[in-house]
Amino acid sequence: MDRVATGISGLDEMLNGGIPARRHVALYGGPGCGKTSFAFEFIYKGAKAGENGLYISLEETQEDIIENMKNTFPMFNDIQDLLKSKKMQILKPNKIDMEGIAETIEENITDRDVKRVIIDSGTMVKISFAKEIEYRQTLFEFFSLLRNMDCTSLTTLEAATSKKEEIVYEIEHFVMDGIINLYNLDRGDRRIRALEIFKMRGTDHSRDLVPFKVTPSGIKVYVGEKVF
Amino acid sequence: MDRVATGISGLDEMLNGGIPARRHVALYGGPGCGKTSFAFEFIYKGAKAGENGLYISLEETQEDIIENMKNTFPMFNDIQDLLKSKKMQILKPNKIDMEGIAETIEENITDRDVKRVIIDSGTMVKISFAKEIEYRQTLFEFFSLLRNMDCTSLTTLEAATSKKEEIVYEIEHFVMDGIINLYNLDRGDRRIRALEIFKMRGTDHSRDLVPFKVTPSGIKVYVGEKVF
Amino acid sequence: MDRVATGISGLDEMLNGGIPARRHVALYGGPGCGKTSFAFEFIYKGAKAGENGLYISLEETQEDIIENMKNTFPMFNDIQDLLKSKKMQILKPNKIDMEGIAETIEENITDRDVKRVIIDSGTMVKISFAKEIEYRQTLFEFFSLLRNMDCTSLTTLEAATSKKEEIVYEIEHFVMDGIINLYNLDRGDRRIRALEIFKMRGTDHSRDLVPFKVTPSGIKVYVGEKVF
Amino acid sequence: MDRVATGISGLDEMLNGGIPARRHVALYGGPGCGKTSFAFEFIYKGAKAGENGLYISLEETQEDIIENMKNTFPMFNDIQDLLKSKKMQILKPNKIDMEGIAETIEENITDRDVKRVIIDSGTMVKISFAKEIEYRQTLFEFFSLLRNMDCTSLTTLEAATSKKEEIVYEIEHFVMDGIINLYNLDRGDRRIRALEIFKMRGTDHSRDLVPFKVTPSGIKVYVGEKVF
Amino acid sequence: MDRVATGISGLDEMLNGGIPARRHVALYGGPGCGKTSFAFEFIYKGAKAGENGLYISLEETQEDIIENMKNTFPMFNDIQDLLKSKKMQILKPNKIDMEGIAETIEENITDRDVKRVIIDSGTMVKISFAKEIEYRQTLFEFFSLLRNMDCTSLTTLEAATSKKEEIVYEIEHFVMDGIINLYNLDRGDRRIRALEIFKMRGTDHSRDLVPFKVTPSGIKVYVGEKVF
Amino acid sequence: MDRVATGISGLDEMLNGGIPARRHVALYGGPGCGKTSFAFEFIYKGAKAGENGLYISLEETQEDIIENMKNTFPMFNDIQDLLKSKKMQILKPNKIDMEGIAETIEENITDRDVKRVIIDSGTMVKISFAKEIEYRQTLFEFFSLLRNMDCTSLTTLEAATSKKEEIVYEIEHFVMDGIINLYNLDRGDRRIRALEIFKMRGTDHSRDLVPFKVTPSGIKVYVGEKVF
Repeated sequence: MDRVATGISGLDEMLNGGIPARRHVALYGGPGCGKTSFAFEFIYKGAKAGENGLYISLEETQEDIIENMKNTFPMFNDIQDLLKSKKMQILKPNKIDMEGIAETIEENITDRDVKRVIIDSGTMVKISFAKEIEYRQTLFEFFSLLRNMDCTSLTTLEAATSKKEEIVYEIEHFVMDGIINLYNLDRGDRRIRALEIFKMRGTDHSRDLVPFKVTPSGIKVYVGEKVF
Repeated sequence: MDRVATGISGLDEMLNGGIPARRHVALYGGPGCGKTSFAFEFIYKGAKAGENGLYISLEETQEDIIENMKNTFPMFNDIQDLLKSKKMQILKPNKIDMEGIAETIEENITDRDVKRVIIDSGTMVKISFAKEIEYRQTLFEFFSLLRNMDCTSLTTLEAATSKKEEIVYEIEHFVMDGIINLYNLDRGDRRIRALEIFKMRGTDHSRDLVPFKVTPSGIKVYVGEKVF
Repeated sequence: MDRVATGISGLDEMLNGGIPARRHVALYGGPGCGKTSFAFEFIYKGAKAGENGLYISLEETQEDIIENMKNTFPMFNDIQDLLKSKKMQILKPNKIDMEGIAETIEENITDRDVKRVIIDSGTMVKISFAKEIEYRQTLFEFFSLLRNMDCTSLTTLEAATSKKEEIVYEIEHFVMDGIINLYNLDRGDRRIRALEIFKMRGTDHSRDLVPFKVTPSGIKVYVGEKVF
Repeated sequence: MDRVATGISGLDEMLNGGIPARRHVALYGGPGCGKTSFAFEFIYKGAKAGENGLYISLEETQEDIIENMKNTFPMFNDIQDLLKSKKMQILKPNKIDMEGIAETIEENITDRDVKRVIIDSGTMVKISFAKEIEYRQTLFEFFSLLRNMDCTSLTTLEAATSKKEEIVYEIEHFVMDGIINLYNLDRGDRRIRALEIFKMRGTDHSRDLVPFKVTPSGIKVYVGEKVF
Repeated sequence: MDRVATGISGLDEMLNGGIPARRHVALYGGPGCGKTSFAFEFIYKGAKAGENGLYISLEETQEDIIENMKNTFPMFNDIQDLLKSKKMQILKPNKIDMEGIAETIEENITDRDVKRVIIDSGTMVKISFAKEIEYRQTLFEFFSLLRNMDCTSLTTLEAATSKKEEIVYEIEHFVMDGIINLYNLDRGDRRIRALEIFKMRGTDHSRDLVPFKVTPSGIKVYVGEKVF
Repeated sequence: MDRVATGISGLDEMLNGGIPARRHVALYGGPGCGKTSFAFEFIYKGAKAGENGLYISLEETQEDIIENMKNTFPMFNDIQDLLKSKKMQILKPNKIDMEGIAETIEENITDRDVKRVIIDSGTMVKISFAKEIEYRQTLFEFFSLLRNMDCTSLTTLEAATSKKEEIVYEIEHFVMDGIINLYNLDRGDRRIRALEIFKMRGTDHSRDLVPFKVTPSGIKVYVGEKVF
């Protein structure tokens, strides 16, 4: 079975080697839980390992993401090179339009042999629809297109809460092949970040909740450490 | 009384032999709780025992389900044979249309002597309707048709929560003859899977919550073991 | 004061002899809590005691109910005789139509001297309306008609929860003369069934929560035993 | 200051003598908490003490209420006399129409010198409106009329919960001069009834939660006893 | 800095002297928590201290409020004199109309040199609107007018709950300069009243929750005493 | 990396030097938690340090804010000078109109070299829209404009609760680069104020919940002190 190693320290171990290839996974969490950092490192590590990446930003500009990520990961000192050589590309579409995004992904797969795709954030797509039924139909069509493409994707999704107990699963979660929950957990006087692999079709995986940190040299997932 | 043995280790014991024949049962649970694995093993074990099966997938492609299930159950080494001999068939309708699905089931009963049917997932049907009243009417008509057919079915239903205490019962649950709840329970630092038979018309059954695991050789329901 | 003995072991004791005659009582509970079994035994015991009964099923077919009840109560070995002699009758109207149901009840009272009526389930009536205001008006008219008939009725109502603490009382409860709550209580690793008489106009009654079981020879309500 | 003694054992003590005259008070509680019994005893004791009463029933028939109350209060052996002499009257309007109800009250005050009025239940008025804004306007107009009449009233209101902690105050509570909350409290294996005077304009009053029982000789409010 | 002493025992101490002049403050609480008593004493003590007051009642009649307050505060033996001399005036507008209320306030400021204004209750204004957006716009316009007038106001607002933990802040709270929360706290077998100054623009203030009582000689706020 | 020191005692330490330049941050909290004081001190300290500021008030008048702030911060004795020299300016637009606000900000950047902007409060913008979808679209357009301007902004947002556990994250939070949560925490008999940096793109930051006070000489954030 093909797997796509995320390159994120500890996460691949939890996934028994990586995300099953050609699967479409949600990164789900509230504000400030590190979704963009996860998504970026997935693309960055892929680019370094020879798998070209496409980061579709529906909210921040390319410049903001790059500046943000350089600050977040100062030890990723070849970001600019990878962007220049187009091993990694960040695009911000002019408008939020699922069909256009699907075309962009397909073109990038054909032209640049892109293997890894980020959509940040899927919530921007959701809130661009006035009627939920239209959103659902568009979403199904989008994933039907995506399932026929040779790429593995992460889509960030915004949760309305940072409490582990109150997460509500919605249509996006049923459609997607996997869900990685990121938490910014309330520990009274401070917050700690943690993650769990909640669903991953086609592979066994860890079911533990584990703490993680975003460090200058990349995300560290502390497999085997307890949060509570 | 006729019973349909699920073939799932431990579950038939909880059901006093199996699901009453010609009953229509819901497999209810949140993302990542193993609904597809349960549904597949029910069909697979039936096919092995001489009862032909039909798996109607409203979401994933046939290929994805097969690949997923081969990875999930590596010791089910005759999946391909059973598919080839049509003892087991996975269909993905072009559109979600209850009348068409009922016809498909009926044809398969007539043509292939299908005894076991999976609808995965019933939630896809639900969300394809813009108005709830139309959904209800269609649902009633669908089950009226199904009740006249000589088959036993499992329909997967997506729960919006993984908390045992917060399950809300909806129209599907009142219509169906049985409900098996699958849980992906939050145990602080990890998740464990458990199930209970919540409702089963026409038979006495266990009322315990029991843990289960999806193992390479099939699902194991640990009857008699405690979750809490 | 006239009372209608339910014939259910323990319940009549809690009711100081039975349900006040010509009152209309709700059997309220979530899926799998035994509503149909209660309703059926009420009719069955009445028929045996010389009070003819009518079971109006708005969901399951006559055949399914009979098969289900024969399995549930194997020691009720004269079900078929009582049906044949029309001491007990199960009807499934072609459509859900309150006026038609009221007429059916009236005819059965006139023609067969029916004294006990079941409507299973009242929730099917509720969900057949698209607008709540229309449902309410129809419900009021229906109970106005029923109050003038010489019969005692039980109407099953579906609760959306199986938690005793979260029951919400709605329009049906205000209209009805009595409410018997049935619970399928979560006890961590298992479920136990319990009931309480929550409201009963015109008679004093027990206010205890008591466990019950559905046994082959009928429902046993364990008056005096504790649930917690 | 004029006060209207309710005649209910213990309650007048909590009210420092009774309800301030010409005030309009809500009896608020869920199903089965004794609202009708309270309302009836208020009218009955008034009639015995020379204050004529009018009981407007918007739901049950006169016959049902009388039968119910004779069963509930077997020691009130002059109910029939008081009804005959028109010291006490129970009316069921043909339709729920606030203006008509106000006229009825006014006529009864003029013709029969009625001093005490029951409206059972105000919730029936509420649910007869399809739009909340129309209900509110009608309610305000109704209470404007009532405030100019020389009578004291109790209006029963249906609560959707029997939990003391979850009561939600709505428009009716703001409009009314007083609120007496009746509870059917969940004590695990049984229910006990309790009341509190939650609001009473124009008089100081007890703020305690006290248990009560409906006994054959009238309601007993156990002032000074603890519920918890 | 100008301050308006409320004259309520203990409250001015909590406010470091009183409400900042020309500020508009909400008295927020559920039914029966003493809002009208607070509002009335504010006006009454102002009138005694030479600051004329206007009490705009949107619900009870002038007569009811006066009778109620004479009963509540029997030791305020000059209420009638203050009303006669127009140092204090209670008005009930014929209709609830923000523009008309603003004009009334302005006229009273011009004609009678009114310094203190009560609007009882603001919730009556809110519920007189069918659409929330219209209410908001009217509210903003109303407070724009009020901010240009030389008066200090208290507006009573009805809370839907009497639980301290469940208060939800709405549009009125954001607009207003201060919020004093009044509670009728559930202490199991009884209720106790307490208050806190939750917000007060332009002055430091106590942040404690303190008990209070409505006594015949006025409200007593027990600064320094604990509620829990 | 450019940072904008807030000048608020303790906060810059938590931010590792200040807010990343040209980022747009939310100050989120319920009524009475000090949002306006934070926003004002950010502008004031900027003006003193040579960075011109613009305070756009959508609710209170300039005069009210200035009077309020002089009372809140009596030791900020040069407020008037900074206003006169236009190092600091408070504007109240005639109407709430995002396009107009964006133009105002741009003009002030061009004309007065404004570096710091306050929008108080963003909730006023939100509630000025009748349809949420229109609000969202306007909000996205507004932040697209803002991202191209050379300024750093704080936008106050009103939370509906003062409970740390119940905060719900909405569209504004996903769009903004940072969120500072301000709390007015319920400690039973009193309230204490606390803050946390919940999200800040482009910089590491403290994740602690720390108490703060608004003192005459400015806000003090007590880094290292515990709230619980």
